[in-house]
Amino acid sequence: MPATITIEQEDEGLAVIIIDQTLLPNQTKLLRLRAVAEVCEAIRSLRIRGAPAIGCAAAAGVALCASRAEARTQTAFMGQLEDSIAQLAATRPTAVNLFWALERMRKAIARHGQSSRAQLVSALTLEARKVIADDLARCHAIGRYGRQLIEPSSAVLTHCNAGALATAGYGTALGVIRAAHEAGRIRQVWVDETRPLLQGARLTAWELQQEDIPCVVITDSMAASVMADRQVDAVIVGADRIAANGDVANKIGTYGLAILARYHRIPFYVAAPVNTIDYQLTAGSEIPIEQRGPAEITHLAEHATHPIVPIGVAIHNPAFDVTPHSLVSAIITDRGIAQPPYVETLAAYQELD
Amino acid sequence: MPATITIEQEDEGLAVIIIDQTLLPNQTKLLRLRAVAEVCEAIRSLRIRGAPAIGCAAAAGVALCASRAEARTQTAFMGQLEDSIAQLAATRPTAVNLFWALERMRKAIARHGQSSRAQLVSALTLEARKVIADDLARCHAIGRYGRQLIEPSSAVLTHCNAGALATAGYGTALGVIRAAHEAGRIRQVWVDETRPLLQGARLTAWELQQEDIPCVVITDSMAASVMADRQVDAVIVGADRIAANGDVANKIGTYGLAILARYHRIPFYVAAPVNTIDYQLTAGSEIPIEQRGPAEITHLAEHATHPIVPIGVAIHNPAFDVTPHSLVSAIITDRGIAQPPYVETLAAYQELD
Repeated sequence: MPATITIEQEDEGLAVIIIDQTLLPNQTKLLRLRAVAEVCEAIRSLRIRGAPAIGCAAAAGVALCASRAEARTQTAFMGQLEDSIAQLAATRPTAVNLFWALERMRKAIARHGQSSRAQLVSALTLEARKVIADDLARCHAIGRYGRQLIEPSSAVLTHCNAGALATAGYGTALGVIRAAHEAGRIRQVWVDETRPLLQGARLTAWELQQEDIPCVVITDSMAASVMADRQVDAVIVGADRIAANGDVANKIGTYGLAILARYHRIPFYVAAPVNTIDYQLTAGSEIPIEQRGPAEITHLAEHATHPIVPIGVAIHNPAFDVTPHSLVSAIITDRGIAQPPYVETLAAYQELD
Repeated sequence: MPATITIEQEDEGLAVIIIDQTLLPNQTKLLRLRAVAEVCEAIRSLRIRGAPAIGCAAAAGVALCASRAEARTQTAFMGQLEDSIAQLAATRPTAVNLFWALERMRKAIARHGQSSRAQLVSALTLEARKVIADDLARCHAIGRYGRQLIEPSSAVLTHCNAGALATAGYGTALGVIRAAHEAGRIRQVWVDETRPLLQGARLTAWELQQEDIPCVVITDSMAASVMADRQVDAVIVGADRIAANGDVANKIGTYGLAILARYHRIPFYVAAPVNTIDYQLTAGSEIPIEQRGPAEITHLAEHATHPIVPIGVAIHNPAFDVTPHSLVSAIITDRGIAQPPYVETLAAYQELD
């Protein structure tokens, strides 16, 4: 499996290399991005997606901009960097890791404000690579903590893709599943296909298949049925933003799953690095929820000739929902496993960060 | 909108005319079926689907067989009829209306066992037409009863298609919605797209659009989110088989919706004619659940060239699930509205039937 994102030095500046996730699993195509506009397009079009991976892409985008900037004066150069940060920040509203990564790049710019341009480019490249390396390390830490929660011979259910493809590698929810599988504790993974964009069927199943982790794909509407059959021992999902009280924004369908898990007395775990926690927000109701276009629902593939919904019928397409902390059994982070009351346990991680 | 199913006299015998529902909403194509094997194929392939419509198709299939039978002796003729009943009974296992309709045809055959072949053909044609006409009348009765449960200015959510296309016309769940809309009580209908075969997006949205009933299509995974937004006042679904205790088998995803409705304190109604009640079964756990092939999930359209799931990954595809009666607020039938305890209220309808 190619790395989700890497930064390479070319003659003219940096290139950001990503897998075009919209083409998986039928085609594994690498894209070399050489302009911030290309990085923005890749994020907006979900060629790279998943909260931690979006953060990595944004950091890489700022370094890319610096390395290829054509501004002659220092003022114009700084303006270009600020502009690229603004463009990247406008790509997607929900995942907070995007803003966290851009803030980290902004601080690096401030730290090296008096350096030469070459030094700043080099510092920003280093910083972006650190964001990526840190994310990978965070995922491994999440896996190490999380696998303790998985009982031997467990069948776990996951939604969307919180895997290697959603991060710098290894994954958050799939990081826990990978670590638990390495420890011999996974009997089977139920993979929600995750309409509308099918990240479960296309990406999660692909990752699990490559590592021979037994998995079965179901439509999202089948989760309750397999829970009723006592075929699910735990649900594990990722997160796009977590409020200070533990409310979790994640891929649409997560909230419903959490209710189903509670009804069937199945533990419901969220796995995310601490930079997914937005301490500015007291509750999930403050998290902005991205509304996406109708074609994701009306057309089953990008180039489908026929819609599946009669033309003219209204569509509602929120990309995320908010799961209240009361439905979350534990939040697995790279700093440890947070238990309720989250307002206290998550706050402890802020002091460490 | 063409009738879901009609029976026509041709020179050589009967023809059964249906809309090919697999082609909707992009194409409205009528199929003229002239052999039992064609009726069986149409039921198995979901060209005609929905529990009451399957019953109508089965009844029509038996009459069709009688009208075109080439058997020379009375014994061979009766054998052909029995054979056609067996073939029709083997098409789909869950919807009980199929077996109910075949039993009704079997009784008609027994009643006219001593008649001439022409008289028997004519009696069976009449009986099949009665099954169809009765079903339409039952749907209108369901609508009249059910609309009383809908508060003014309601937003209701429905799953799959329990509409005119799933019945002889008017629909069960959509019958209630149509009647409530005629009474000015429907603000909006939320339509679950209903993976894997998208009967909500393709069929329910098409029916509602034709009658200018405001509707919005969502993916199945969005139902919880719109409930949390207080945008759903009632959930109404159809049924494929109801056990004597009120447990309901219906399209996969129904059970999860019932749990979500309970969590949000939203009433959850099932609308079905009394011939959907299987008094032989004491509980829903005895209802056979049809497992369908993986291609319905792995390929988004019949002729899709690329799968959306990596080749070789396992698929689970139960077509139905069972909602326990404890989650059902009321069962709306053509004989009245049954409230818990269903084991008593549904039993009363059996005595009348």
